[in-house]
Amino acid sequence: MTGLVLTTLDWVPEFPRGFVRDLRVRWALEEASLPYTVATTPVGDAEARLPFQPFAQVPWLTDGDITLFETGAILLYLGEKSTALMPRDSAGRAKVLEWTFAALNSVEMPAVPWSLYKWADDETQSPGRAHLDRFLMGRLDRLEAVLAKREWLAGAFSVADIAMSDVLRQLETYGLFEDRPACRGYLARATARPAFKKAYADQIAHFEAADRERAKEERGT
Amino acid sequence: MTGLVLTTLDWVPEFPRGFVRDLRVRWALEEASLPYTVATTPVGDAEARLPFQPFAQVPWLTDGDITLFETGAILLYLGEKSTALMPRDSAGRAKVLEWTFAALNSVEMPAVPWSLYKWADDETQSPGRAHLDRFLMGRLDRLEAVLAKREWLAGAFSVADIAMSDVLRQLETYGLFEDRPACRGYLARATARPAFKKAYADQIAHFEAADRERAKEERGT
Repeated sequence: MTGLVLTTLDWVPEFPRGFVRDLRVRWALEEASLPYTVATTPVGDAEARLPFQPFAQVPWLTDGDITLFETGAILLYLGEKSTALMPRDSAGRAKVLEWTFAALNSVEMPAVPWSLYKWADDETQSPGRAHLDRFLMGRLDRLEAVLAKREWLAGAFSVADIAMSDVLRQLETYGLFEDRPACRGYLARATARPAFKKAYADQIAHFEAADRERAKEERGT
Repeated sequence: MTGLVLTTLDWVPEFPRGFVRDLRVRWALEEASLPYTVATTPVGDAEARLPFQPFAQVPWLTDGDITLFETGAILLYLGEKSTALMPRDSAGRAKVLEWTFAALNSVEMPAVPWSLYKWADDETQSPGRAHLDRFLMGRLDRLEAVLAKREWLAGAFSVADIAMSDVLRQLETYGLFEDRPACRGYLARATARPAFKKAYADQIAHFEAADRERAKEERGT
């Protein structure tokens, strides 16, 4: 295959659908109107993913001879291809760079571990757990103050907003923005974008098609 | 001040010395032999940091009109200034990009929350805690397999190695590499570099000078 190829899992259960990280890449590709194809890797075969993604995760992006993993890296790489994703001037690029890392290293860093406890329905209280709670809530409070004063993180909409709003989407399912109206409004603006809606619908459709394939195979056996 | 200015805290207690994140920036600047000056912001005044760092953390870097926070962003920004930090070709840059994010979003993401429990001396077992343990150990095991086969993450030494080895330094204090010889060897190679040693010594000296200033002020009052 030539051109941009996004590789994701061939199938996942209902639960993570709409949250598989290929969404970030689909979204960026749609924002920039970059043509791409979707390839799959078997969900049950972690070893097969290692040559492309050393932590056996998805997605990865192939662009000719280059194969790239980590959604943050893919977003910045695609940013070079379109001013719809990242401006050309140094000051504008620096803002996108810092906010993309802020999304993944300052907000997602506590968000994912905190969510692990929620997924496990684990309400055990302990000193470490209190630190983790404060870590996440402190970051969200600081973010709330930023978003109260701006529409998008780095001036115009950019890949930094794709990263940050995708991190926040997961947290919204736990009601964390009921008292944080700026975060809630930001997330509403981001997910109202046609490119997000297309990316989301495409991810859901991808896994639903996989369900139908699986059902067909089961009937065939 | 003109040229590159690295801003860090004016003082910290003994414990975090050698681990304040300005180290990553100092290290990169030393590797690239880029001249810079160090400025300080008062440790007790989080509000004063917000205009430069919206989460009230350090460091940030000023380069003329550009001010940049997030160590990952600063490392990639400096990478553009020197091939000692990042190669010029697209394929080489893509590798540095993905491994810098891997350090901060795939390894540091579980590492910092996991360390919060250790700092709190919290050994409370629970399902969420088991997930967090597996999250970190799984990532370190995958990294071990990668490092068993290469000297540096992205071909030659790069900012990705500064990010990753600084993440691993903290974990080493908890003995996590006793059974992971490739991680241990990698960390030893990284911290044996003259630029690391200079950066580390400079950070320690910076806070020791602050101790002397404080002692002088106390005698004066």
